[in-house]
Amino acid sequence: MQDSPIRVPVETPSRSYDVLIGEGLIDQVGEKCADILRPTRCAVITDSTVGPLYAKRVERSLTAAGFEPFRQVVPAGEASKSLAQTELLLESLSTQGMDRGAFVVALGGGVVGDLAGFVAGLHMRGIPFVQIPTTIVAQVDSAVGGKTGVNLKAGKNLVGVFHQPGLVLVDPCLLNTLPDREYYEGFAEVVKHAAIRDPALFERLKTFHRSDSISDILATNVAIKAGIVRADETERSGLRALLNFGHTLGHAIEQAAGYGAYLNGEAISIGMVAAASLSVRLAGFDPSQAEQLTALLEHFQLPIHLKTPLAEEKLLEAMSRDKKFVGGAVRFVLLRAIGDAFLSDGVTLDHLREAIREMNP
Amino acid sequence: MQDSPIRVPVETPSRSYDVLIGEGLIDQVGEKCADILRPTRCAVITDSTVGPLYAKRVERSLTAAGFEPFRQVVPAGEASKSLAQTELLLESLSTQGMDRGAFVVALGGGVVGDLAGFVAGLHMRGIPFVQIPTTIVAQVDSAVGGKTGVNLKAGKNLVGVFHQPGLVLVDPCLLNTLPDREYYEGFAEVVKHAAIRDPALFERLKTFHRSDSISDILATNVAIKAGIVRADETERSGLRALLNFGHTLGHAIEQAAGYGAYLNGEAISIGMVAAASLSVRLAGFDPSQAEQLTALLEHFQLPIHLKTPLAEEKLLEAMSRDKKFVGGAVRFVLLRAIGDAFLSDGVTLDHLREAIREMNP
Repeated sequence: MQDSPIRVPVETPSRSYDVLIGEGLIDQVGEKCADILRPTRCAVITDSTVGPLYAKRVERSLTAAGFEPFRQVVPAGEASKSLAQTELLLESLSTQGMDRGAFVVALGGGVVGDLAGFVAGLHMRGIPFVQIPTTIVAQVDSAVGGKTGVNLKAGKNLVGVFHQPGLVLVDPCLLNTLPDREYYEGFAEVVKHAAIRDPALFERLKTFHRSDSISDILATNVAIKAGIVRADETERSGLRALLNFGHTLGHAIEQAAGYGAYLNGEAISIGMVAAASLSVRLAGFDPSQAEQLTALLEHFQLPIHLKTPLAEEKLLEAMSRDKKFVGGAVRFVLLRAIGDAFLSDGVTLDHLREAIREMNP
Repeated sequence: MQDSPIRVPVETPSRSYDVLIGEGLIDQVGEKCADILRPTRCAVITDSTVGPLYAKRVERSLTAAGFEPFRQVVPAGEASKSLAQTELLLESLSTQGMDRGAFVVALGGGVVGDLAGFVAGLHMRGIPFVQIPTTIVAQVDSAVGGKTGVNLKAGKNLVGVFHQPGLVLVDPCLLNTLPDREYYEGFAEVVKHAAIRDPALFERLKTFHRSDSISDILATNVAIKAGIVRADETERSGLRALLNFGHTLGHAIEQAAGYGAYLNGEAISIGMVAAASLSVRLAGFDPSQAEQLTALLEHFQLPIHLKTPLAEEKLLEAMSRDKKFVGGAVRFVLLRAIGDAFLSDGVTLDHLREAIREMNP
């Protein structure tokens, strides 16, 4: 017997939907979909790692509820977030006879969710999709909020659409098969949510261990993300930009080190430590809170320094690709306190150089 | 001295914008854009036919108004409506440093408008775009209403997004360089608008000749399209489906005959004659009005029969690809009278066979 799932509503100008969080939801996909979608054909888009583990259970549940699922498997990894892969999937949706009444199920981590959501957003100018995120980052962040898209040669996430899912099903049991490194990676976003919006979550995290039930933490994180998305669905007001805490330097690290050297969450962890240090210098952030943030990241086995040195200029160059320096300064998310983030225009090139020096081992 | 342009507002749930219609607008692109957009970089996307004729004037006007245009030329023709071409343009927008404040100008016919609008819809999850349509179909139909997208191997227009333009500039002078066949092709959509919504326009068209000023006809057509789009932006209520009058058979003709055998407007003209004949049989449409419709299409040098016979089964097969037969019948737009179209569920396979027999020469 399962407890009934925790329900977190996400209300945006374009669409409102539920995130359901509960152990064993993977076997209730069909009935949950039947609550919002009529029986029809649906594409289960997954990857070569997750598909063999969970796709059959999802399909069984969908079939039992009267849906006609067919599976589309993409290679696991960031390289599948491409327009070429998008085209393959779109051709296959069409030849499989998916019409405007059909829908897509995204079963996987962030790559699968972004790609499958994008495909759903483009097929016949948009059909519904259901997210079944299988990593912590996807469960607390990327599956909620409607950002979908793929990468270009020119950079990551440069192409996409805002397309909100019809439903998000978060089953913490799916995390059990993650190796430690991929499991803890996800806590970079969890700690980020706590750091920018929620001191109580920050405290709660200090005592969390992998063997504990994670449902309440997932629900709190989804609620934080949902609150931000509700207020700023398409990133106009600046509120949604607070979610970039640690990301500016994190993305630069990923790019400068070459993709694959760090997991995304690892790079963001290092970026948050640097952003906390800038916050101490520029925004009156209490140094002891900065130390707590660092300690919390270490508690989740996340790196707080670069593993091998990266040249200052290489990092700055990588950063200038997605950040504009206006009058020598860059927009940057800083903390006044744990739970109180803001968008600063006062971070200069010199500040960044200093932060980069501190990141090096 | 120009008269001030005719302004037709388009109000949709997602965005409201103006269609301006006036001779010489091509040289006022910059100032009109400056009314709604801040000075920034912009991509002028055009094709190898239209670019050499008009791009310089557009760029001169944009530069004079403080914008920084750069030109992207795609090969003229339907083949450019592809995801491959989309990717080339998106890569180039990114490497040219287009950020979320930049915008796209679509200068061309329906292919360029659909492609450039799609690119604008996808670049960084959507930037503004301005339509400068250069054919009649684009001016009265495809540039208004926010449908953007490209073709797949599996079929035409299967991929896209709804992305409304920020402004549409219709300059009838651009039509002067069209050869007769491409000029008159556009009247298929004009006659269609009259047939489904506007008996007065239908009468007005009977006395129109290419040497007459066309501005008022363009404005009336844009207003018809705008009214339908306002009421049914994303094609949910069935109203927007009325715009498919003549298109179901028209698309089947294009596909069965092989693309290129008929211009799109020519195929739709034949499709409308057949749909009118079905309307007489099934919806009480007055046979003398059906004859007037046929005569009006001939007045615009449009075909009313197939040039060479097409096999019944081939046409039905092509049709079944984008139409679903439910219980042996298909949804089909019929006329009760000129100006009074409706969506019928009563057209059967036998009715269609008969209509196809009549289309053959």
